[in-house]
Amino acid sequence: MSVTAARGFLAGGVAAGIKESGDRDLALVVNHGPSRAAAGVFTSNRVQAAPVRWSRRVLSDGRITAVVLNSGGANACTGQAGAVDALLMAEHTARVVDTVPHEVAVCSTGLIGVRLPMDRVMAGITACGGALSPEGGEDAAVAIKTTDSVHKSAVVTRAGWTVGGMAKGAGMLAPGLATMLVVLTTDADVSADALDPALRTAVRTTFDRVDSDGCMSTNDTVLLLASGASGTVPDAEEFAEAVHAVCLDLARQLIADAEGASKEIEVTVVGAATEEDAVEVGRSVARNNLLKCALHGEDPNWGRVLSAIGTTSAVFDPDRLDVAINDVWVCRNGAAGESRDKVDLSGRSVTITVDLCSGDSSAVIWTNDLTAEYVHENSAYSS
Amino acid sequence: MSVTAARGFLAGGVAAGIKESGDRDLALVVNHGPSRAAAGVFTSNRVQAAPVRWSRRVLSDGRITAVVLNSGGANACTGQAGAVDALLMAEHTARVVDTVPHEVAVCSTGLIGVRLPMDRVMAGITACGGALSPEGGEDAAVAIKTTDSVHKSAVVTRAGWTVGGMAKGAGMLAPGLATMLVVLTTDADVSADALDPALRTAVRTTFDRVDSDGCMSTNDTVLLLASGASGTVPDAEEFAEAVHAVCLDLARQLIADAEGASKEIEVTVVGAATEEDAVEVGRSVARNNLLKCALHGEDPNWGRVLSAIGTTSAVFDPDRLDVAINDVWVCRNGAAGESRDKVDLSGRSVTITVDLCSGDSSAVIWTNDLTAEYVHENSAYSS
Repeated sequence: MSVTAARGFLAGGVAAGIKESGDRDLALVVNHGPSRAAAGVFTSNRVQAAPVRWSRRVLSDGRITAVVLNSGGANACTGQAGAVDALLMAEHTARVVDTVPHEVAVCSTGLIGVRLPMDRVMAGITACGGALSPEGGEDAAVAIKTTDSVHKSAVVTRAGWTVGGMAKGAGMLAPGLATMLVVLTTDADVSADALDPALRTAVRTTFDRVDSDGCMSTNDTVLLLASGASGTVPDAEEFAEAVHAVCLDLARQLIADAEGASKEIEVTVVGAATEEDAVEVGRSVARNNLLKCALHGEDPNWGRVLSAIGTTSAVFDPDRLDVAINDVWVCRNGAAGESRDKVDLSGRSVTITVDLCSGDSSAVIWTNDLTAEYVHENSAYSS
Repeated sequence: MSVTAARGFLAGGVAAGIKESGDRDLALVVNHGPSRAAAGVFTSNRVQAAPVRWSRRVLSDGRITAVVLNSGGANACTGQAGAVDALLMAEHTARVVDTVPHEVAVCSTGLIGVRLPMDRVMAGITACGGALSPEGGEDAAVAIKTTDSVHKSAVVTRAGWTVGGMAKGAGMLAPGLATMLVVLTTDADVSADALDPALRTAVRTTFDRVDSDGCMSTNDTVLLLASGASGTVPDAEEFAEAVHAVCLDLARQLIADAEGASKEIEVTVVGAATEEDAVEVGRSVARNNLLKCALHGEDPNWGRVLSAIGTTSAVFDPDRLDVAINDVWVCRNGAAGESRDKVDLSGRSVTITVDLCSGDSSAVIWTNDLTAEYVHENSAYSS
């Protein structure tokens, strides 16, 4: 049900002909209210796509009535012409769903540096407007796929209200958000001022800690739209928890479907002096190509973990570092611990635990192994 | 001739049995003077191998009489026992070449986290002491190879004096030095105080700008030994230039022999506000796995260059970025420029030029593409 699990929302997804494959490639999500409160988080990449620049401006009012999304082209690095294209998408969507352009967010994903085929996009928006339905969440989730092998959606229901969402993203997954588009909806009655911190808090410890390949996209967007259609004002903490649960579910689905990956790797850093230290160390480990290759080869090469830790500015003593791989403490006090032979890396899930022995803070980063298939997917054709 | 091209030096390389393959794996370089002035640069990784910690202490006096090097084991993350092993190597070498332990530098390379087979190492040092020769530079260069497919050496001769050197390194190549051991020798008469700035300046713009796979080693070491045997005190600027030339030659050989690479990529950043900005942008581009895959696939995917630039803190305007791939300006003003079809990526050498249009500073970073062979080499066995 994804974005239409919550009451007050219609969605649809159509094949507009942007993708050569003929697959669905254009989606709409429409909030019928009564509330149109919204919050958003965008890529921290300084090279930002035209739709990101546009949607940031839309969100300055804290209101979104509709979101138009397309796959098959990122509309990034397309200059002034691309900015006009994003505006035209918002204007035409506003006409189709009967609202004003500055309440229409725009999200695009696909190849950077090429213009969208605007005639097809515009016709697709018209067609999608006719296909909107309270059961359209799945069609929308399918339409935003790029190299995703499956569409991703998640729903959490609480007493009287629901948070649902959809996500896409399979490569260029890294902090400052993964390369991804996410639309979350809720029928809870929550103001834009309250949506914003709930979303930021959830994103900070979910999507922002997915680091599949260290590459940050130009188009990452996470939107949260509230319709208030349940008539329920939720407890702030319970609402934040529900948003976090949906984000975490979607983030894990992104890692599970990452391009070419054969392992899902959870890097947990404990004993850190600060959460920032834990995140820095976790990212450094998660981005180490040599370690990612070793794990692909099912080699518990903890020396590569220590090499990665050593490049950070985190507080630690090199002679007091402990590392466990799949719960076997192969490194104790910066040197060999339990036998590497005890580590079973044959499964798809791998856990790496780093104890910096320097404090009480911790963080988790999710990543993948590095495989020949990843190289193939990202060298065989443009994406 | 590598380290024995300069007068006053003996070297040798033997098979001590540290490597299971039976290949040469232990080398000595001995300075017979009259001078023993020396300088060194070490990894900036905070997790440092025992031999690095030892050699740093040796260099505090600015004197080195001998260097003992082994492949087949890094003696990194080996705790107090590893520190003792490094000391024993220095002590035994001192006995064999008739000097004192604190004038013996130690360099090790190979797998992290395992102790060296000290009985074989000690016997190897004895044997190598008997094999020292003024023609032994090549044997020494061969003995320090790990996954290198060829040994690397370089020589520059000026009026009356010479700078020569050897290097090893094929993976874990990244700043803070590549994973490499380098020994440079000269028969010029240069004091330790003058060697140090010449070496640091040369390393900063050569080895430190090699970034094959973004992974920083625990063992990187570059040593420069001066014998003074030519009796010539060179012009400081000419000497610095000669050291730079040898370092650049060796650095290029490292990139040419990087594990699994099919492309040698030179990233030149111009128009930067500062050299630091240029280096930051160059490194970000050189480390982008998606771009490295695209170049492997001979796809001039300039969008991935812009994505990488956007993650940096360098001064630039996203709408004033120009990018050339193999001299074709495929991106102008942050958007599509000349046709991608004009870019011929069929050769082994690739140049990427980024113009930040924000100043007069520049820098060059050398890297490789990301290939299935890299994944294979680094997943199929421990290294």
